[in-house]
Amino acid sequence: MNTSIGVDIGGTRVKLGIVRGGKILLQQSFPTRTIASGPEALERGIAAAVQGLRSVFRGRVESLGVGVPGLVLYPQGIVQTCANVPGWKEVPLRARLQRRLKIPVRVDNDVHAMALAEWRYGAGKGVRNLVCVTLGTGVGGGFILDGRLYRSRLGPSAEIGHIPVGEKGPACSCGGSACLERYVGNRDVIRLLRRRLERGEKSRILRLVDGRLDRLTPEVVDRACALGDRVALETWEEAGQKIGLVLAKVVNLLSPDRIVIGGGLAQAGRWLFEPIRRTLRERAMRPLGNIPVVPAKLGMSAGVVGSALLGQEAIGE
Amino acid sequence: MNTSIGVDIGGTRVKLGIVRGGKILLQQSFPTRTIASGPEALERGIAAAVQGLRSVFRGRVESLGVGVPGLVLYPQGIVQTCANVPGWKEVPLRARLQRRLKIPVRVDNDVHAMALAEWRYGAGKGVRNLVCVTLGTGVGGGFILDGRLYRSRLGPSAEIGHIPVGEKGPACSCGGSACLERYVGNRDVIRLLRRRLERGEKSRILRLVDGRLDRLTPEVVDRACALGDRVALETWEEAGQKIGLVLAKVVNLLSPDRIVIGGGLAQAGRWLFEPIRRTLRERAMRPLGNIPVVPAKLGMSAGVVGSALLGQEAIGE
Repeated sequence: MNTSIGVDIGGTRVKLGIVRGGKILLQQSFPTRTIASGPEALERGIAAAVQGLRSVFRGRVESLGVGVPGLVLYPQGIVQTCANVPGWKEVPLRARLQRRLKIPVRVDNDVHAMALAEWRYGAGKGVRNLVCVTLGTGVGGGFILDGRLYRSRLGPSAEIGHIPVGEKGPACSCGGSACLERYVGNRDVIRLLRRRLERGEKSRILRLVDGRLDRLTPEVVDRACALGDRVALETWEEAGQKIGLVLAKVVNLLSPDRIVIGGGLAQAGRWLFEPIRRTLRERAMRPLGNIPVVPAKLGMSAGVVGSALLGQEAIGE
Repeated sequence: MNTSIGVDIGGTRVKLGIVRGGKILLQQSFPTRTIASGPEALERGIAAAVQGLRSVFRGRVESLGVGVPGLVLYPQGIVQTCANVPGWKEVPLRARLQRRLKIPVRVDNDVHAMALAEWRYGAGKGVRNLVCVTLGTGVGGGFILDGRLYRSRLGPSAEIGHIPVGEKGPACSCGGSACLERYVGNRDVIRLLRRRLERGEKSRILRLVDGRLDRLTPEVVDRACALGDRVALETWEEAGQKIGLVLAKVVNLLSPDRIVIGGGLAQAGRWLFEPIRRTLRERAMRPLGNIPVVPAKLGMSAGVVGSALLGQEAIGE
């Protein structure tokens, strides 16, 4: 069984783990801001952490995989943009890490990595065609098609967050407009909710956060849903309808065997799944509306495990 | 080189051809209405035509492929629905033809067949990821992903005509609403145009059809565009925007190397490509807006050649 290191560059922390057979044997993390100053710092930060893990771990490590929240050219491993690090552009991360660490390296989008992990070990196990979605600050996607991770020559693919919901809508940083991410990104959901509460709408949410609207989180919305709170239920209803409508489009194009939804918003939003499933039933082609929509299983470890799986693709070349 | 028979079930005629290396060596056709009365008539009609071709053609024919305008379960070859023949439901066409004709048979969606043909011999030659679209009475799609025709276990896939354009819109026979096909299907484009002309809008189109609005066709619209006619240009502009918006969604999910557009509307509508390309540039993610959108090359023969390619998939099993 291969042993690989997976590196998951998250919004607040970079997580690393030594992974074998889908299990994290040893792990570590450090704050993302320490590498956010630029490619040099990134390269050094990751390399140092990897060396640290290797010195503690006795066994042989065969490869390294890195999941990046941004656009990555594959297989070249050139990071075109990175969501949390505005200064990054066209960084040949794969080549640099390989030179420095002397093991085979693969770099890809972080949701691609997560899709690999959920497919091999999680909620998407055993299916041939799988659609994975992450709902967090951003909205991402990864496809397993015909039993392989789908990648394009041009960098982005499975960009579910950048599927337009309607014909017109707010401009998006991607160059398009009315993108799903502009409506159901974590911050957008909270901002809309906050506006409603500031306008004086009554809701149990207010008591749950002791009247402090800066404490609004998806978890709080979900707790208020459990209490039957109308504002909270409507918040998930509106987000769920938009997500479901976009998933209907994905489903009519790819009719996957299953849809797995992960990320912070999905972990919090148990009440989000119902409107997503209902809208999918209503808007997809008739035989496809009942495709199962299930929560991701691997939680926070999907990023590290999936990145390690990326690394394993490097072996045998 | 393999020799196969391709059968393309069209709206008005069923076309058959003996195909080798992408060339149609011998062909024949008969009116679709003769088989439209039901599965029995279909099976007999196709079988008789195939036997006819075989008796004229001296060489060996190794397989048979049938392209059906509807939902087909693959590889079973069960025709779930067929656009031109309302009575058809769950017809095991592959098994029946195989039993009758004693050669390996494959049955799939007709746009899947067209995509195979354009990819192997036409406007999509040589690329790894290809999106094919047909614009006709209906709007169909076929994907070549990672160098293979993409199929799902559930029947439909690449259903570009059933991608919702906006959040709300007219109900569609597929079960969804606001589907692209409801706006840019041949008949819908002509109906909208006719309504404008009946309302008294001035247009050179009127003279081109001698004032007879029952003679409106996509070809006439294109000729009026060439004369700079505003109503004609707006007709393609509106259709092109909707098609371009849906293609932006497809592109953000699959970022293909190329998009090939065929079918009657596309053959007529040279003026349709400009608004499609512009909308794609405006609405797709930045690196993807320039993906080439090109007209199909094989024209009417794509259906027969592609169906023969389906047949070839049967060999070697």
